Amino acid sequence: MSQKKLVEIYMGSDSDLKVMSLTAEYLKKFDIDFNMYILSAHRTTDAALEKIKTAKDRGVEVVIAGAGKAAHLPGVLAAKTNIPVIGVPMKTSDLGGRDSLYSIVQMPTGVPVATVAIGKTGARNAAILAAKMLSMKYEKIEKKVLEFMKKMEDEGLKKNKKLQELGYKNY
Amino acid sequence: MSQKKLVEIYMGSDSDLKVMSLTAEYLKKFDIDFNMYILSAHRTTDAALEKIKTAKDRGVEVVIAGAGKAAHLPGVLAAKTNIPVIGVPMKTSDLGGRDSLYSIVQMPTGVPVATVAIGKTGARNAAILAAKMLSMKYEKIEKKVLEFMKKMEDEGLKKNKKLQELGYKNY
Amino acid sequence: MSQKKLVEIYMGSDSDLKVMSLTAEYLKKFDIDFNMYILSAHRTTDAALEKIKTAKDRGVEVVIAGAGKAAHLPGVLAAKTNIPVIGVPMKTSDLGGRDSLYSIVQMPTGVPVATVAIGKTGARNAAILAAKMLSMKYEKIEKKVLEFMKKMEDEGLKKNKKLQELGYKNY
Amino acid sequence: MSQKKLVEIYMGSDSDLKVMSLTAEYLKKFDIDFNMYILSAHRTTDAALEKIKTAKDRGVEVVIAGAGKAAHLPGVLAAKTNIPVIGVPMKTSDLGGRDSLYSIVQMPTGVPVATVAIGKTGARNAAILAAKMLSMKYEKIEKKVLEFMKKMEDEGLKKNKKLQELGYKNY
Amino acid sequence: MSQKKLVEIYMGSDSDLKVMSLTAEYLKKFDIDFNMYILSAHRTTDAALEKIKTAKDRGVEVVIAGAGKAAHLPGVLAAKTNIPVIGVPMKTSDLGGRDSLYSIVQMPTGVPVATVAIGKTGARNAAILAAKMLSMKYEKIEKKVLEFMKKMEDEGLKKNKKLQELGYKNY
Amino acid sequence: MSQKKLVEIYMGSDSDLKVMSLTAEYLKKFDIDFNMYILSAHRTTDAALEKIKTAKDRGVEVVIAGAGKAAHLPGVLAAKTNIPVIGVPMKTSDLGGRDSLYSIVQMPTGVPVATVAIGKTGARNAAILAAKMLSMKYEKIEKKVLEFMKKMEDEGLKKNKKLQELGYKNY
Amino acid sequence: MSQKKLVEIYMGSDSDLKVMSLTAEYLKKFDIDFNMYILSAHRTTDAALEKIKTAKDRGVEVVIAGAGKAAHLPGVLAAKTNIPVIGVPMKTSDLGGRDSLYSIVQMPTGVPVATVAIGKTGARNAAILAAKMLSMKYEKIEKKVLEFMKKMEDEGLKKNKKLQELGYKNY
Amino acid sequence: MSQKKLVEIYMGSDSDLKVMSLTAEYLKKFDIDFNMYILSAHRTTDAALEKIKTAKDRGVEVVIAGAGKAAHLPGVLAAKTNIPVIGVPMKTSDLGGRDSLYSIVQMPTGVPVATVAIGKTGARNAAILAAKMLSMKYEKIEKKVLEFMKKMEDEGLKKNKKLQELGYKNY
Repeated sequence: MSQKKLVEIYMGSDSDLKVMSLTAEYLKKFDIDFNMYILSAHRTTDAALEKIKTAKDRGVEVVIAGAGKAAHLPGVLAAKTNIPVIGVPMKTSDLGGRDSLYSIVQMPTGVPVATVAIGKTGARNAAILAAKMLSMKYEKIEKKVLEFMKKMEDEGLKKNKKLQELGYKNY
Repeated sequence: MSQKKLVEIYMGSDSDLKVMSLTAEYLKKFDIDFNMYILSAHRTTDAALEKIKTAKDRGVEVVIAGAGKAAHLPGVLAAKTNIPVIGVPMKTSDLGGRDSLYSIVQMPTGVPVATVAIGKTGARNAAILAAKMLSMKYEKIEKKVLEFMKKMEDEGLKKNKKLQELGYKNY
Repeated sequence: MSQKKLVEIYMGSDSDLKVMSLTAEYLKKFDIDFNMYILSAHRTTDAALEKIKTAKDRGVEVVIAGAGKAAHLPGVLAAKTNIPVIGVPMKTSDLGGRDSLYSIVQMPTGVPVATVAIGKTGARNAAILAAKMLSMKYEKIEKKVLEFMKKMEDEGLKKNKKLQELGYKNY
Repeated sequence: MSQKKLVEIYMGSDSDLKVMSLTAEYLKKFDIDFNMYILSAHRTTDAALEKIKTAKDRGVEVVIAGAGKAAHLPGVLAAKTNIPVIGVPMKTSDLGGRDSLYSIVQMPTGVPVATVAIGKTGARNAAILAAKMLSMKYEKIEKKVLEFMKKMEDEGLKKNKKLQELGYKNY
Repeated sequence: MSQKKLVEIYMGSDSDLKVMSLTAEYLKKFDIDFNMYILSAHRTTDAALEKIKTAKDRGVEVVIAGAGKAAHLPGVLAAKTNIPVIGVPMKTSDLGGRDSLYSIVQMPTGVPVATVAIGKTGARNAAILAAKMLSMKYEKIEKKVLEFMKKMEDEGLKKNKKLQELGYKNY
Repeated sequence: MSQKKLVEIYMGSDSDLKVMSLTAEYLKKFDIDFNMYILSAHRTTDAALEKIKTAKDRGVEVVIAGAGKAAHLPGVLAAKTNIPVIGVPMKTSDLGGRDSLYSIVQMPTGVPVATVAIGKTGARNAAILAAKMLSMKYEKIEKKVLEFMKKMEDEGLKKNKKLQELGYKNY
Repeated sequence: MSQKKLVEIYMGSDSDLKVMSLTAEYLKKFDIDFNMYILSAHRTTDAALEKIKTAKDRGVEVVIAGAGKAAHLPGVLAAKTNIPVIGVPMKTSDLGGRDSLYSIVQMPTGVPVATVAIGKTGARNAAILAAKMLSMKYEKIEKKVLEFMKKMEDEGLKKNKKLQELGYKNY
Repeated sequence: MSQKKLVEIYMGSDSDLKVMSLTAEYLKKFDIDFNMYILSAHRTTDAALEKIKTAKDRGVEVVIAGAGKAAHLPGVLAAKTNIPVIGVPMKTSDLGGRDSLYSIVQMPTGVPVATVAIGKTGARNAAILAAKMLSMKYEKIEKKVLEFMKKMEDEGLKKNKKLQELGYKNY
């Protein structure tokens, strides 16, 4: 991967990679370059902190962090940077992701994490949210976001039209 | 209120005003001007939609929306703008705010809401998150954010020092 | 589909179609004609609002809306019509449908949604509830509802009789 | 109370009366007459069943039932009538009303209850939902509902206007 | 099945039969005869009530009722008899059985249901609890219960002994 | 207190005494004598076990145990006696009693606890459930139970009558 | 405070001080000296990490950390030391402490936190757990723990004796 | 198995063996010998109590106990020993392990259980936590713990390096 990227994706474990790849795929829809790291708040704390502290210097403008269970990564990253951090709570097999969600969204005063939905939906939406943030500065991205929203609406309308034509049994 | 503001605060009901005033107070810490509206996704849907559709033209760059119970306002606003929307889930007396939280954070693919903590903590953090977003574009705000973070750390350290000096009984 | 229908079924996504088809199947049991739309409160907000605002003119008397996660569709439709809206919360893989349920049932004062059970059970019951509502006006539907209730009771009694005859091992 | 009423309000205990009185107050806004009963699915089962079985004969067209904890009343009433039943889950001091909500909304296939929000909000919304149902048949009620919705919107807009004029500190 | 049985098993639906058969199997371990009915509080209310009202005359001394979702059957039966009623909450696919549990255990003052664990464990334990109740009157059953408890302990100790001999890898 | 009592009430802590006194008060309604102990599964394990092991010899026929948080007392008692054990989950200030409820009701196969509602309602209902159990053997208690049920119904009907006479505003 | 202490108490905010003072009070019961710090994983991350990294050198053998909401402090400390870390989840006003609990107990493989009960109970128990850990090495502490357990049992028995003497009404 | 072991693993049922074997495997990573027992707080109470009361004499210094549903084993063991007890909540099919977690972590004042995560993660972490506790006394174990932590960090860094080299698509 090259050096100058607007977004960086962090995840706590390579078991989160399958979900967080959706973030990557969605960032590409907006032509947004990104770095991607497997760095844990617990297993590789120092490396994670060092990476986030230098993010500004790498020109990063939005950070996305996915983590599961007692999901501390997004909050710990947010503590060490003025770059906005988007948190993606992983779904968990026992508590359904409620643990990840609470660990990410319930951040104390002073250190917000921009939390999105649990699991794959959240991973996709993290990219879109990043694009929306970046569109305040980058017209090219804003244009892509507007196109994305338009396309989403068009496809929605097409689905409805298809339903009207085929009926629900043949849809 | 004047016309050119970077942030707009929406709330579904004037019963949310006490909490959302904290967002206003915190935005001022970063010298960020804002508009503030009581506009409901249910009671004044058309006005809310009209307002959000023209937000871009007013120069708005971040939207903050607080709502409680079946809290649709942040999601509905996010559906109609490419401006990033931050959602603040109100605490509720029966379900503790879990209803507000789920209604805001669990947005479907395509329409993210940047969700923060339930209640007052979230209201304050929404302002800080907005400031972090805006600091990608406005150096003056970035400087304020960095000062805020530095001050927060200093005050934290001072509290610890005070504890060391006084002991927990006299703190 | 033809024009004059008493019920309209809305759903937020075509991924809800499999479940909401049960509503359609059950409406047929009561000889109730219906329209069916895939219209999202988020992805096709304008079309959804336009459709609901004209529902009265199409002669619609009950609206049924199914949605999942941060399920805003039923509430948003209910905001724009005096036709009663029945909400069907979709089951979700992470939170079991609790998110959909809270987003639909916890509507604020002024904009009720008649909420039924999560998932397939709710989809079926939405049709029955619609038929019960309509039976206040349409004797033919009322007759169908009474027959349905009678048949349900008879079949229940038959099952019990079968259990008495066969025993639980051979049932 | 006189005889010919369109709505009947049932509640399981006189401890629910304070909340269910809000339903009564709201029905009056729509000029809808009603009967009101304290009849429990558990303590006065026979009387409750007898009352619901004769509701049709009294000309009742919508039933509203409030109950708390293991809240069986709405479901048991719905089992014995083709009149649509609206269920209001009482807030509970230990589980917040989650128990009441699940006991009312999770009805099995065949016997729907139109469930509204927990507590006072639900009690008010039950009346509005009843009015919306009845407006399919009674033009006078429909007119009242439309006026109510219009007034709600106007008052919402007024609150927003007031906020613009006074600012959030003086609101 | 013959006439004089000490226990009666009720269930709301034949979909509960697989689980409630475990109750039957366990009652046999204590040589307790039983009747078994599929009778719903909602679909066959009158038959269920008639059956429970005559239970005393049939010589029934303990009632066991299994039901799922908005599980009203145990509570409604308990309302109409002085025979103790044991409730078995069915596991549900969306809420895990929390809905069934709350609907059964949270009975209001005056009408207790002796609630056991969710699902198969509860179905088995309902039979054991019935046997414990009956052992206050029937020495033969008490002897069986004591043997059951002794055997359970012995088998537990045997498992531990086996683990000591084989080690956990070969167990 | 004298020696020969049919029921024994155990509680884990004297902080449960206020709630469990309701059990005592209700047992008196049925003229059932009882012993009452403060014995914890954790703080006075040996004494609790010794007491339950000798309960049979004291002529005890039903055991009622109240406990909160990780509420092990009812289950541990049930493990050491063939007397049926009724468990009363205390309400807790943080989790509302969900912790107590799960710790009591979710007993594994072989060791059932007859669980009643959380808190005061459960404490009262435990006494009624005990009386229902005992009425299978003691005609005098059965008579009291039937009177109690009759009185409960009568009082319920009286409340309804009062409502009809006074209206909800003057009730 | 002096230098050589066996236990260190960390808390994320001085709003936790009232609860965590109970830990201090309880440590004194076992004559265990301690340091106490207000150091946040988010507001003073660097200082918290530096402090924990030098804990070993200060002779610390058990760490206790209290935190609320998205409670990352115990986990982050545990990541950087081989000293066992005990976590105390603060009660929260909206989610009851469920958020704190999940954020502390659900730590991923490799970085355990020894979690105790929510709130004041947990704060007291953290001290007792620390004493139990230390008693494997320090006979003096072990003796104190055994005395504590003995006294707890004696006081429990005394309460029961008092109940037997006074009866529940005069207790 | 031989006699002098530092750790003992208890589990309530052999259905927990698959999960608790992970504890055994992880203890081996630290060269810690252990005994392992299947002893239930309910089915083999006396044997469990006898075993824990003699643990000190066997030289045991840490106890690990896994249990599910109404999981009383860890708490009951903790009540009878001054050895620290680590509790592992089993995942459950209906409530996801919330029942096990609450039954273990919410212990009342005086009897702490050091609770770890639900299921397999907790089983592994219980061993690591035991090793961390023992490292205060046994330098050899401390060395192993430090190596384990170092290796965990190295492997984490390697994974990140691999990601940088291969990219997320080829990882």
